[in-house]
Amino acid sequence: MKRMLTALSSMALVVPLVAADPPVPYPEGYRDWHHVKSMVIEEGHPLFEAFGGIHHLYANPQAVAGYAAGKFPDGAVIVFDLLEAVSADNAVTEGARKVVGVMHKDAKQYAATGGWGFEGFGGGDRTNRVVGDNAAGACFACHAPQKDHDYVFSRLRD
Amino acid sequence: MKRMLTALSSMALVVPLVAADPPVPYPEGYRDWHHVKSMVIEEGHPLFEAFGGIHHLYANPQAVAGYAAGKFPDGAVIVFDLLEAVSADNAVTEGARKVVGVMHKDAKQYAATGGWGFEGFGGGDRTNRVVGDNAAGACFACHAPQKDHDYVFSRLRD
Repeated sequence: MKRMLTALSSMALVVPLVAADPPVPYPEGYRDWHHVKSMVIEEGHPLFEAFGGIHHLYANPQAVAGYAAGKFPDGAVIVFDLLEAVSADNAVTEGARKVVGVMHKDAKQYAATGGWGFEGFGGGDRTNRVVGDNAAGACFACHAPQKDHDYVFSRLRD
Repeated sequence: MKRMLTALSSMALVVPLVAADPPVPYPEGYRDWHHVKSMVIEEGHPLFEAFGGIHHLYANPQAVAGYAAGKFPDGAVIVFDLLEAVSADNAVTEGARKVVGVMHKDAKQYAATGGWGFEGFGGGDRTNRVVGDNAAGACFACHAPQKDHDYVFSRLRD
């Protein structure tokens, strides 16, 4: 028994060291970053299940520079802020936050996913990580075809 | 005839001095200000003719402080940035800019309209002023009932 406990505690120490990528930091202060653009995804859209609602994209200063260059430097962070879209009385207004999606550029740390770390914070709760180790399948697979724009779908507008 | 011309040129000199309010400045750099909130106004909405499309509200630092206080200091500027809303394939995306609406707080200069100067820049063109001297009827009449929140409709959200 003692040997098993020792083995378990060794594993507990070792497992984090061999885990894939370092966690993507919560994007502190992103609501004061540059608002890039917005979009409403409605029922019937192929991405409705995952991203239905109204979303806003925000970019920190490094990411703003990256949009212009078409290539994003380490430290660039883009936030996909998804809120419920409430349709009533011929208007669409913003409802509760559904998820704070994050792309965080670090070419070395996230080399396996195009140099970007991906995470989603469910309901905007910084402790509720909804992507975790599934970034390759859950996020990067869809972003991969955007390789010519450094895996970023959005473009900066005036 | 000479007397008439002299009279006209005197008027030309005098009229600007007695004109109502000083022009509201174009809000330089507002796309980097704090994004307050957004909304889509669709056909059938009572404000569709004037404000149909997707709009984003931006606040400069003085205005952000004003939202929190419920009272806005001189120098506070709020921008209502209205873009066309393009509905297609179960999504609403942003189209061309329709107008950059501005509320600019200066309690003395704009005393007649609640301390706010109102202007609209058609198509975002800083030379195309679509409100001008009509702020009282075109803007303030609708804002007046918001007196308890310093004539501002929008509220700051997380």
